[in-house]
Formats: sequence, structure tokens, C-alpha cells
Amino acid sequence: MITPAEINRLKRDGKTLSAADIQHLVTAFTQGEVPDYQLAAFLMAVCCRGMNPEEKQALTMAMLHSGVVLDFSDIPGIKVDKHSTGGVGDKTSLVLAPVVAAAGVPVPMISGRGLGHSGGTLDKLESIPGFRTDLSLVDFRRLVETVGVGLIGQTPEIAPADKKLYALRDVTGTVESVPLITASIMSKKLAEGIDALVLDVKSGSGAFMKTDEQARELAESLVATGQQMGKKVTALITDMNQPLGWAVGNALEVIEAQEMMRGHLTGRFAELTLELAAHMIFLGGGADSVPQGRQRAIDVISSGQAMEKWRQVISAQGGDPRVTEDETLLPQAHYQTVCTAPQTGVITAIHTEAVGWAALLLGAGRLNLATPIDPAVGFRIHADLGTEVKAGDALCTIYYNDEAKLALAQQRLATAFEIEADVPAERQAGLMPPLIHETI
Amino acid sequence: MITPAEINRLKRDGKTLSAADIQHLVTAFTQGEVPDYQLAAFLMAVCCRGMNPEEKQALTMAMLHSGVVLDFSDIPGIKVDKHSTGGVGDKTSLVLAPVVAAAGVPVPMISGRGLGHSGGTLDKLESIPGFRTDLSLVDFRRLVETVGVGLIGQTPEIAPADKKLYALRDVTGTVESVPLITASIMSKKLAEGIDALVLDVKSGSGAFMKTDEQARELAESLVATGQQMGKKVTALITDMNQPLGWAVGNALEVIEAQEMMRGHLTGRFAELTLELAAHMIFLGGGADSVPQGRQRAIDVISSGQAMEKWRQVISAQGGDPRVTEDETLLPQAHYQTVCTAPQTGVITAIHTEAVGWAALLLGAGRLNLATPIDPAVGFRIHADLGTEVKAGDALCTIYYNDEAKLALAQQRLATAFEIEADVPAERQAGLMPPLIHETI
Repeated sequence: MITPAEINRLKRDGKTLSAADIQHLVTAFTQGEVPDYQLAAFLMAVCCRGMNPEEKQALTMAMLHSGVVLDFSDIPGIKVDKHSTGGVGDKTSLVLAPVVAAAGVPVPMISGRGLGHSGGTLDKLESIPGFRTDLSLVDFRRLVETVGVGLIGQTPEIAPADKKLYALRDVTGTVESVPLITASIMSKKLAEGIDALVLDVKSGSGAFMKTDEQARELAESLVATGQQMGKKVTALITDMNQPLGWAVGNALEVIEAQEMMRGHLTGRFAELTLELAAHMIFLGGGADSVPQGRQRAIDVISSGQAMEKWRQVISAQGGDPRVTEDETLLPQAHYQTVCTAPQTGVITAIHTEAVGWAALLLGAGRLNLATPIDPAVGFRIHADLGTEVKAGDALCTIYYNDEAKLALAQQRLATAFEIEADVPAERQAGLMPPLIHETI
Repeated sequence: MITPAEINRLKRDGKTLSAADIQHLVTAFTQGEVPDYQLAAFLMAVCCRGMNPEEKQALTMAMLHSGVVLDFSDIPGIKVDKHSTGGVGDKTSLVLAPVVAAAGVPVPMISGRGLGHSGGTLDKLESIPGFRTDLSLVDFRRLVETVGVGLIGQTPEIAPADKKLYALRDVTGTVESVPLITASIMSKKLAEGIDALVLDVKSGSGAFMKTDEQARELAESLVATGQQMGKKVTALITDMNQPLGWAVGNALEVIEAQEMMRGHLTGRFAELTLELAAHMIFLGGGADSVPQGRQRAIDVISSGQAMEKWRQVISAQGGDPRVTEDETLLPQAHYQTVCTAPQTGVITAIHTEAVGWAALLLGAGRLNLATPIDPAVGFRIHADLGTEVKAGDALCTIYYNDEAKLALAQQRLATAFEIEADVPAERQAGLMPPLIHETI
């Protein structure tokens, strides 16, 4: 068998690796038989030289099969999940899971926690009193079977190779690589027992991928890899040049999600959620086309079936379903203050990543997985990109519990909104980017 | 200070690193403050993205100053050394040191051991009974001062960063990189207290660099880096498409070296040695031009001064100088056998690396630094590239001590010489490559 150093040399020189070599390397590394330094050099070689589709598939397969791969084929229906590459204020999963399940499509969803400027679905769910996401894979299966939705966190059994590789990538400067990101995402998602997947690849100032070009490269790679594995996969490239919706912060985002499930269907957050739901319902066989899927999503919301499914989900996972009627049962921040526009003009940029970091500094997020978070704090954003504001208008309301953290967050927010006077109408119109950039 | 992961990310993306960042990374790694995996990814990024001259110089400086840098400026004369990138049958150092010193130019020479298919000067010297190369830097200085030549091995004080980095490169597939090779060679050579350096960059089937293009890239990099450090540096690109001279094997190579010092000045080995000596004597101020340097080398050989210097060197380092008169005092193999041409024709190729590996299998070399070697065994090569042989003619004589090792070596040698019948004269002429391909 070829040695790790020889594999590195081949990749370094731009050669193609065999599936067997990749499989062997990943397996031996996961089992502790290949030292970190050999894998670190391998990861850097992949960053620099890339991988062709077959190599990516082999890497994904090797990481996928490093752990448990769930088989839900005996549960009726086409199982569908959604994955987002992460943004600020993205609470779509909270609405998508009950809506898509209410439309008759099972949703097995394994989510992550917030890290850095980007929020995480698990943290949002856990702001609901009693809600548990640390369930076993046996509980997960039972939830998908009985409720039609399971919302859990990654367990140690799922893709352990990814966990070990990600830790190494983080400290060796090898995170930003399309093949490595592809294998990391798909190895976890394909372990969930899904048949279809909708990908929300964010592009813009609050996203991991800052340009559509980068986002497209990643989206195409994810779709191709998923399809090679026999899954139905659709990717949307969506705008992350401003927070998605008005809420940033865990309990606040639950409130905004519930607002939508009560029938509030306007605005960018609702628009994106309906679009994602439409694709999920279509892929899951709950509609004959994407537009029909969208109508089906609107119908289950209007009829109250989505909210009823949401209550079932909360109850089934140990949470208090009364939060759907009485939002004062959600964690409440003790104080609030308003952040105002320093001048009159048009909002020409929102540094969305800065908004995410400000939320983190306020206590809504974490720098590492050991940090506790404060579910109550966050922002209500009042101003959209490209809109006009007057000096003194509220840009956002800050919900906070700690003066020192407030000060840090305010400092970061101060430069997050760019306001310019005398912006020509044409430029102003160009500032409002379409929500869906592309569908792949 | 920038973190190792950030440095890796910059290099990965093809950015230029600052000298301070490189210095900090190498120092922290050498002191054990940066883990192997972070450096391994860095080394791979350098392999893939390269380094500009300033980065190479910074890396060389950082590695050089990780240990002791000798200062011989109080010893009169321009101190000159030679470095070869390694080949098969290359015993030039054994002649160069006494010849150049006899011409009045001090030679502080820190050499390596054989590894893989390539031989090492230390092993050749140690085949002389009593000869010691494991001397301290204090002894080294004294030898250069009193004899005009010191021939020692690398000590732990010289460029410790290189030792640690090389071990990591070896197991991570990051050996073949011009900037890394440049810094590795130059950090060790510049620690020797030299003022000038002649580089013998081998090119061909027995060399690390298989083509002139690769050899030229390395040679130019070495020369530029040495000159940036204020040293006089000349590089020759020389042919390694066949073993250099007739002897391959440690004691046998001492015999061939002494043969030259006794006045045998024909053939490729003598030709290359005279050329290297000419450059060393010229750079060292012992002649006003390279041709005059060559004449000076011939003169000190013809007059016996070179052989006298060689005897002094052997005595000063604990060896038995009587080997210069009585070569039976050198280790003798118990058996010999002849390897013959299987057919009549022209020798169209000598797979020189295979000859080196065959010598290793016979016991003349080592796979790792812990392997003991047999100084007596080796080959006498009778056939040159491009010459005609008849079926049954001797291609080489094998000197051996162990039947099992002989069998392994014979197996390897069997495919080392390619002989073809009916080779047109024009092609035959083209098979004899010039010895010196280029001077830089």
C-alpha cells in the first residue's frame, strides 16, 4: 500500500489519487495510525491542487463511512433535509422543518451550533425552555418516524473523520478549500438517511463565500458530489449581504420564525424560506413542481398545520409548546437600547459579518464550543440595505443583559451600517440585491 | 504576532510572507512551540506555491541562526567549500580538500553520510582505518587553522532547525521543493565560516534532479541565496547520467581518489575534480582566473604537494596515512565476481540510480542512518555510456562479502546497463553527454 508521504507527493505534483488511496489514508488517520503532521500536509496539498469529482467523491465516501450511516429506507416517504453554509439571522430551518413535514415530507435534520459570526440552529432551538437536541440516533429515528421531523445535533457516531479533520484544518490554515468543504458537509448530511437535499449556499458580506463565483463553485461541487452518491440535490445561491429578516439572536429568531408560521409571509426571510420549502417539498414528492411546492408551503402555513407540527416538534423534543402562544415564556433580555442613524442618507452597505460578531460579543454567539451563550440577547434590525434613513432613525434595537458586553457590541455595530447622502436613484436600486442569485 | 495557521493561509493563497513571520515560525518550531502538523502544512504550501528570493533568504537566515554560525574571519585566507547535490561514485571532495588546501586556500568542509542511492563523503573517509569525522567544532577550527582542511560531519549545533525540518519533510512528501532544498543546503553551508562556495548540482539519471532544467532552477536559487548573504558562489551543473569514475563503494573510492592525487588526470572523474578545484582556487584567491586555478591544481598534484596534504589530513584526523602508499591497509572485500555484457552493442543508457541502489544492497550504503555499512564492498565500472561492448565483456567487477547481498545487487545491476545493437554513429556520439553542462 502506498505511504502517506507518497500520497502527499502525488497530490503536491497535481496527480490524481485513487479512491483506494484516499479511503486508506482517511481510515488510517481516523484510527490514529497516521499522524496529524502527515494529514496536515495532505490537506494543504488539496487546498493548493484541488480534487477532481472522483477524488471528492472518494473523500466524501471515506469520511461518511468513518462512522454510522443511517438507513431510513423503511420509513415511508422521500426524506429531505436542507443545509446552509451559514449566515447571520438565518432561522429558516425552524420554519422549514415543520412546514415541510406538515406537507407530508419527512425531515431528518442534524444541525450545528453557532460558531464565530454565524448562528446555529441548535442554539436557537435550545432557547425554547426544555427543548433538547442532544438526543441519540435511536431517538432521532423515532422522531422522524412518529413526528416526521427530528432536529438533533451531531453525535460522535456521525462522520468521526470529519470531526478530526476539521479540528486539524482549523489550526493549519486549510479550512477554505472547495473539495474539503464539500466532503465535510456531504459526509455529515449523507449520514442522515436522507434521499434528497436542498443546499442554501450563502454569498455576500455575511457569508463564508464572499462572491457569487466562490459560492457557485462550492454549490456545483456539493450538487455533483451528492448526485454521484445517488441523492437528489438542488442548491440555491442566496444573498447574505445583510442579515436575513429582522431578528439576530436565538430567542428573537424563534419569535420571527413563529411570526412566519402564523402567516406573516412578506419580507426576505419569508421569501427565502418559502423558496427553500418549495424545493424541499418538490424533491420530497409533496408537489409536482417547485411552484406547486411553494403553494403547498403557503397552504400548510395558512391552515395552521405548520404551527401545529411545530408544537408537536417542540413537545416531542421536551420543549414547552406554550411558547407558540405566549412568547414571554422565551428567555427575555432585561434591557434594550436603540442604535440610531448618525446621518441622513441611503444605507449603502451592511457589514453583515460585523453584525454577527457584534451579536457574539453581546453574548448571542460563541468563539469556541465551550462558551455558554445567552439565548435572550440580540438585535432587531430596522433598516434594510438600499433604504433611506433620517439622522436619528432607529437602525436596530439591541436586547442585552450586560453593560460591558453592550459596549463591545455597540462598538462593533458602529461601523456595520454605511450611510451615504446624495445617492443617485440608479445606484440605490442596485444596492438591493436579489434574494436568490441562482439555482443549481 | 500572526499565528502559524494565518501564515499557512497566506502562503496557501500565494501571498508573500514577511521575513519577520518566517523567522518567528522557524524559531518557534525549532523551540517546540509550534506543533509538527502546523509546520507540515506550511512546508506543503511552500512546495505548491514556492517562495520569492526574499522569502528564501529569510528562511535560510532563520534556519542558519537556529544554531551556531562559525566565524573564521581571523584565520587568514578566503575560506572555500564545495557542495554537491549527491550522486553515484562522486569522490571529488576527497581530492578537492587536499588539492585546494595545498594551493593555499583553506577548506572548512562539513559533509554528510550516504543515504539511499547516493554516497556520502564521511563514509568514504571513515573507510580509512582510524579516520575520525565526529570531531567537535573546536577541533574543526583547529584543523582549518593548522592543516588548512577540516573534514567533519554535521554537529548538533549546526542548523538544528534544518535537522528538525528535514525529518518532517521526509515523512510528509515535501522534500522536492527548490526553496526548501535551497534553505536546507545553504543554512548548513553558511554556518561553516566560509567566504565562498562552489556548488556541484548534478543532473541526470543518478541525480536528485533528473533534468538540466530542474538542476538549473536549483543552481540559480542556491547561487542567488548565497550571494544575498554576501558570499562568492559559483554553481556547475554536471552530468550524472553514469557513475562518476570507475569506483562505487567507500574504500574503492578512496583508492580512485588517491590514484588521481598520484597524477592520473584523465577521465570524467579527474576532469570534474580539476574543474571544481579550478573554481575553488579562483574564488579563494589562489589564482587570478579559473584556467589559472586549474593549472594550479594540476601543479600541486604533479609536485606531490596534494598527496602530502592528504597524508597530513589523514594523520590530523586520526587515520593511518600509510594507506596512501599501501592500499591493502584499506578494507578489502573477500570475493569478487564480474558482471558481463549479455549482448554485443553500444551502451545506450546506464540507470545510475539503480547502480547506486545496487551498491546499497551490496552493503556500501544505507537505507537509514542507523544501518551499518561495509566499507570494502562496491563496484569497479568498466564500461562508459556510449561505448561499444561485445557479448561477455566485463561491465563491472563486484567486490562483495556476502552471497545473499551479492544476489540482490546482481538483480538490480542486471537492468542497469542498456545495450543496443546497430546504433548509428550519430546517435552513439549523442550518447556521450558533456561532463559540465553549464556554469552559473
